[in-house]
Parts: sequence; C-alpha cells; structure tokens
Amino acid sequence: MSHLPPALPARTAPPECLAELAALVGDRLATGTAIREQHGKDESFHVAFPPDAVVFATSTEEVSAVVKICARYGTPVIPFGTGTSLEGHIAALQGGICIDVSRMNAVLEVRPEDLDCTVQAGVTRKQLNEFIRDTGLFFPIDPGADASIGGMTATRASGTNAVRYGTMRENVLALTVVLCDGRVIRTSRRARKSAAGYDLTRLFVGSEGTLGIITEVTLRLYGIPETISAAVCPFPGVEEAVNTVIATIQSSIPVARVEFLDALQMKAINAYSKLSHAETPTLFFEFHGSPAGVQEQVEMVQALAADHGGTDFQWANAPEERARLWDARHKAYYAGLGLRPGCSGFSSDVCVPISRLADCIVETRADLDASGLLCPIVGHVGDGNFHVLFIVNPDDPKELETALALNDRLVQRALSMDGTCTGEHGVGYGKMEFLETEHGDALDVMRAIKKALDPANLLNPGKIVRL
Amino acid sequence: MSHLPPALPARTAPPECLAELAALVGDRLATGTAIREQHGKDESFHVAFPPDAVVFATSTEEVSAVVKICARYGTPVIPFGTGTSLEGHIAALQGGICIDVSRMNAVLEVRPEDLDCTVQAGVTRKQLNEFIRDTGLFFPIDPGADASIGGMTATRASGTNAVRYGTMRENVLALTVVLCDGRVIRTSRRARKSAAGYDLTRLFVGSEGTLGIITEVTLRLYGIPETISAAVCPFPGVEEAVNTVIATIQSSIPVARVEFLDALQMKAINAYSKLSHAETPTLFFEFHGSPAGVQEQVEMVQALAADHGGTDFQWANAPEERARLWDARHKAYYAGLGLRPGCSGFSSDVCVPISRLADCIVETRADLDASGLLCPIVGHVGDGNFHVLFIVNPDDPKELETALALNDRLVQRALSMDGTCTGEHGVGYGKMEFLETEHGDALDVMRAIKKALDPANLLNPGKIVRL
Repeated sequence: MSHLPPALPARTAPPECLAELAALVGDRLATGTAIREQHGKDESFHVAFPPDAVVFATSTEEVSAVVKICARYGTPVIPFGTGTSLEGHIAALQGGICIDVSRMNAVLEVRPEDLDCTVQAGVTRKQLNEFIRDTGLFFPIDPGADASIGGMTATRASGTNAVRYGTMRENVLALTVVLCDGRVIRTSRRARKSAAGYDLTRLFVGSEGTLGIITEVTLRLYGIPETISAAVCPFPGVEEAVNTVIATIQSSIPVARVEFLDALQMKAINAYSKLSHAETPTLFFEFHGSPAGVQEQVEMVQALAADHGGTDFQWANAPEERARLWDARHKAYYAGLGLRPGCSGFSSDVCVPISRLADCIVETRADLDASGLLCPIVGHVGDGNFHVLFIVNPDDPKELETALALNDRLVQRALSMDGTCTGEHGVGYGKMEFLETEHGDALDVMRAIKKALDPANLLNPGKIVRL
Repeated sequence: MSHLPPALPARTAPPECLAELAALVGDRLATGTAIREQHGKDESFHVAFPPDAVVFATSTEEVSAVVKICARYGTPVIPFGTGTSLEGHIAALQGGICIDVSRMNAVLEVRPEDLDCTVQAGVTRKQLNEFIRDTGLFFPIDPGADASIGGMTATRASGTNAVRYGTMRENVLALTVVLCDGRVIRTSRRARKSAAGYDLTRLFVGSEGTLGIITEVTLRLYGIPETISAAVCPFPGVEEAVNTVIATIQSSIPVARVEFLDALQMKAINAYSKLSHAETPTLFFEFHGSPAGVQEQVEMVQALAADHGGTDFQWANAPEERARLWDARHKAYYAGLGLRPGCSGFSSDVCVPISRLADCIVETRADLDASGLLCPIVGHVGDGNFHVLFIVNPDDPKELETALALNDRLVQRALSMDGTCTGEHGVGYGKMEFLETEHGDALDVMRAIKKALDPANLLNPGKIVRL
C-alpha cells in the first residue's frame, strides 16, 4: 500500500514524563489501549498510530503545563478535537502525548452586538449553534462531521455554506494558542480589521497542530436570514449541472449553498435516506436573504438552470423539509458506503478555479468509469471544490491501489488547472507528497516557519512538511 | 520629538554593489539626491531616510537578481510602489537599495470567468479599474491614495468599501514573492479555497516588505452592481451618527460604504471641495445591489437613522454626483490641512469592535477638544476604524508633542477596548512601539518568523519588529 508515511524514529514518552503528567492531571491521563487506539485514528482509511497516552485537558493553562512537561522530555504532543479529520492528522507517528480538548467545551462569551463569540477549542459546531440560537445568530461553517471548532480551525475547514460565508480562514477573528515551549499567545485583537504586523491568526488557521495548540477561538457570527429557501434540481448531465453553477457564480448571485451530486451519489442518498429524487446529476441550492432578495435570487438561478436543461425545481421551504434535504446531503459519505456494504471509503478533495470545474469533473468521471470502481462524486461546486468517494474492499489491496492511482491522477489534473490538492480536508500525512508539486520552493518557506516556531519538532510531527 | 526610530548602524551599499547593479540595470539605477530623497519619505510627517540608490525594476527576474546582488554585500533592500504610505514604511533606516516597482505596471491577465486577475506590483488601483472597466468588473479596495497594488498588499490596505468587500486580506488570492536570497515563490494556487499547508498568502499580505518583495498579485474582482445609490445624512451629534452605524452593522444590512465625518471635517470639505453640507456630524452611505435590493437596504437604513435623529438624506444617484461626493470624501486629508494653511498633518488609525465605537470616538473627541489642537475625525466606521487628522505647525515642536501624546492616549484607549493601533495604515517604523502592548508574546512569534525568512535582516530592516 503506498500512502503509508515514511517511517520516523520513535519518540516514546518516557515513564518520568507520564508520571509528571499523572501528577498534573490525575485520572485525566489515560494509557489504556482502547482509548489510545481511538485517539490514533481519524475517520479515514489511513493507518492508526496510537499515542503513548491521552490527556483530557480542561483549560489553556493545563495545555500549557502539559506542553512544558513534554518539551522537557522531547516528547511529541498531538492535539485532538473529535477525531473526524480525514488525512491522518491525529496519528502519533512517533508516539507522544495526545491532548484531547473535548472537555474544553465552554462557550466563553457571545457578543451579539459585535456579531462574534469566543469558545474553547472543544466546542463543536452544532453545540455552538444550539447555544446561540436564541440570539438570532448562527455560525455557518459546516464540515460533514460535527467537528470541534478547534479542529475546524486547525484544518481550515469549510463546508456547504462557504460559497457565501467563506471558510474558517475568513471567519476566525482571533486565537489563543499554546506554543511549543508552553507560552500562551493571543494572535490578534478583536477588531474586524488590523494592519498591526504579521497575520498570525491566518498562519495558525490550517496549521494542523504543527505550530501551536489552539485552545480558544473567537469567531464571526451572522444573523439568521429572514428568509431561507432550498431546492433540488435534476439535470440531464454533469456538464449542464456544473455549467449552471459556473453561470451562477459568474453572475455574482449570492447563493448561500450550491452542491453537486452525481447520478451515483443520488442513487446512494435515495437508498440511504429513503428519498425518491431523480437519479441524474443534481444540484442542491439554498438561498438566504429578505423575502424580496430571495425571490430575486431564485428567479435568476431558475433562468440560468433552464438554459442548461434544469427545469424541475423541487422546493423545500419549511424548516423540517430543509433539514431533511441537508441531512441527506451531509450523510452523502455514509450513503456512498451503503452502495457496497462492508467496504471502506476515502474521499478526494481537489479544488480548481471555477472556469475549469466542468472540465475537471467530466475528465475525472470518465477516468473513474474506466476503472470499474464504484465512485460517487459530490461537491461544494460554488467554490470549485468536489469530492470523489472511493469505495474499496479493504481485503483487496488491488482496489486500494486503483483508487490511490485515480486520486493521484485527479490531483495532478487539478494542479494542472491551477487548483489545489485539498480544498478543505487539509494535509495530515495523507497529502504531504502532493505539496512539493503544488508549492515548489514555497514549501521551503513553510519548512522554515515550522522550524522557527517548533525547533525541536514537538508539535504534531510528520504532518504538512517533512523536516 | 519622540517618534524617531532608534538609531540603527548604517549598512551603506558598497561601491562594488552599486557597480554590479549598474551593470545589471544600466541607467535604471539612480543615485541622484532628488530621486533618493523622494524614495526615502512617504506622505506622512515621519523623517526621511533616503536609500543609497534606487533601482527601477522591470520584472520579477530583475528584482530577484537585484536581491541576490544585495544579499552578497549584506545591503538592505526596500520595496517602493507609489510612496503613499503613512508610517515611514519606505524609509531606508540603514541605507541600502530601494527597489521601485512603478515600472512593473502591466495587467498580466484578467479572467472574467473566474472573477480574478493577475497584475504586476506597480499597477495602481485606479489603473486596474480603468483597465477592466469594459469587463463589467471592478476592484473595490480604495485607500485614499492611488496606491500600487503591491504596496496595498504589503500594508494590508483597505478603504471605504471594506465593510462590504473586505480588505486586501480577503481579496488577494495569490502572490509572487522574491525571498531574501532571490528565490521566487508563488504563495498559492488560484483556487478560491485551499487547505494545503500554511497560509503564506496571508502571511505576506501586511508584511510591509520585511519578509519578501511582492512582484505579482492575483486579486478577486467583483461585478459592478446593477444599482448604486449614495447619500449624505447629517446628525445632531457624534453619538447619534455612530449609533446609526452600529445599528446598521448589527442588523446585517450589506451596506457597501458607510463613512463618518465629524463637524470639523464637514467644515473642511465644504471649504475644500466647494460643497454646502450641514456642518454637523455626518454619515456618507453607498448601497450596492439590484434595484429591489438597494431599495430594501435604503428603507432599513433610513428607519435606523431616523431613530437617531438623522432624517435629512440627500441622495446622489447619478454617477457624476456620486463621483463628486466620494471625491470630497477621499480628499478629506487635504481638506483638513486646508483648515490651517502651511501646517502639516498626520493621521491616527485605530480600529475597535463596533460595540465600542461610539465610546471610543466620543472620548477621543473630548480629549482632542481639550487639547486646543484642530483635529477633524473621519472614519470607515462600519469596520470600527476611524482616523483623527492631527494638524500641526511644523515650526512648533510643542504642537507635535501634544498631537503625539493625544495619539498615544488614543491607541491606549483603543487597545483597552480590544482594538488595534492600526486598522489599515500598517506599522512601518511609526507604530512599532505600540506592538508590544498590542501583541505581548505574540510579537516574539512575529520576530521568529522574520528571523527565519530573513536571517540577515536584509528586507526593509527596522520595520514591524525590532530584532
């Protein structure tokens, strides 16, 4: 199997380190096999690398104290939120201590008057939205999983709303971060904009625990739109659906969500979520705004869709209908797996400039079809981002080889179109080999930053850049 | 006078360095006094530090070659766009070579289908908008000056449209950068989003030439709105005007521009631009959208303004009326100087969370009034950012002392409200002393990054961080 990381020397936590940690956190230090294994493997097919122990941290100060102890012993530390990443981000490649922040789950402050809030890193996106519902505000970023805000920040996550509201890059205002020597910094003040030095906030967003451990996050919030309207529209083919999206974006229509599901993915979600949509390439839309504004957007998008053979809009305006629609969309991954029970899946994640999206999807679909593997496609196509779900028999190494080769070709295709190997999943250890081609000498700059901020390579070693 | 930078040892370019540069660029190497002095001083009151020579570069390759030569001699390099910065950014504090990119003024590619373009660093914002006018697109970021895109990127500039369209942070997609050893990198692919490693694009945006020299910029563009409507509305007092803005932002009304001018500033622009507005605290608005969308925004904002005593909206809907209005706004600085002919000005630049904006402006106005200095206030208040124009007699050191003390108190006030010392002007050498208070230990992280990317401190030394 190819995508194993290169073997790195073990840096197992010595007994003295574990003893100091136990003295600090008591029974919130766990060394049992089950807990360690659970913390060494994310939701992907990537091989598990359990840490030597797991600390269930409860405060920034405690994370700082843990890091200081580990630093003294040269022991790696790996932060952990919900474990729902997809590229082996949390694997303890050299052993070390996993810092689980899931108990740091307090919403520290909500400031409706500034449309922002500050949360501990372990708060999940659904928990936050529950908590703030009464304020009339919401937080839009929605990766498939109910991930932690800390993990979403660390992986620069996005989701279905990014076309309108941006990704974690645009929605994090400030961070509290524990550095490799245990010092605690705040990356920015809470003003909406600043020109006061290097943009540390954006540097830590997407740094995957390799530059520091994120313990608190200040986020932008948005008013819940007065009107929300969602629709499903089937198209005669992939190109027609994707070209409708391209025309929508090029017309600057502020659509809140526009998701593409190919025929196979529609078949999968019909079976999994007990729906009866047409099993052809389909777009899911959502529109946010005032009643008149939504009406205007809907009319413009319907006209563009009709130009491309998409005329059968089915509307979901009641909250429960919309919830059912998006629940089916969010479960696309599990629905895909349902096509071949007993099989495993992994997901590609390329993102290309919107003008190249139809080419990229059509060429990819042809490559997938020629392979004989069952591979549905689903995507946040308004951003130029789409996922192929590779469904493989775990007992058949040939199938995984085929899928990995398809994914390699897909990444090269996206890079040749000035796209990226990962739109939202991140690098972990699974995508490191692609960064050389994607970034060239810029990867040396990333390496220099890593060495400057973590000279002993203690923070989630073996991820993003090889040293 | 206080705001002089600490003296740094001279690192004058040796004759051999100048000879090599002359061999490379011929008569595009200038060593005359007038050109050197012009390149050592920006538009602010900060003291001039002329470089030893100026190279008028014509390509990324040439910038790279110049940097390689300078690196061999340990000679500093300082990039220069239009020289319109405001915090001494371009001062050659230790001597060295100024690289003027104003002749790198080609729009390299416009891609209407992707709503983006790539320009050389010397293209100015007005030149770009002229160039793309026929495409139906525009680039919204508009600092007061007709600055270069390279300089705007390097200082993380914004302007009157930032409340709707964001700053350079949100609108730069990718950069070509020459590193301290002459290597050329591209910070990112052109996809709208990516999770492929550290966000180098955002790291170089706002780095003020201290981490690399920006030679090409890929920017987001926007469709010119179908309808644009602008208005001026006077208010009975500062609080009423600012509270109208706060209510507008808190209601999530997507206003394109909302600018505050206090009574003194209104008096100044009436005189300077031959207008006859009421000389009370005033808001300038602009609304972008479809006809119905603009109508809706206008009605909502008028209702909010009326709640705060602002009822006399004067509309400027014809393009020439709007142009006149915004021209007057953009000339606020020069209008302010017109209040005391022969005097010099400098501008503060704090930015605070919107909930604290009224407090911050009211407290500041009282402090200014007590000082006896003539100080109009103008601001991009939708972002929480405002400017005090300090008008001082250059022959009276007491006045400058008073103004600097007022500015110090203003910065401390903003920081105590979780704001920043600079919303959009940047640090240069004028704001460095405030960063310790603003960032604490995070400043050490900035220092570590500077050392990692520029170990010999060749790139615009003495700016942002002290080493």
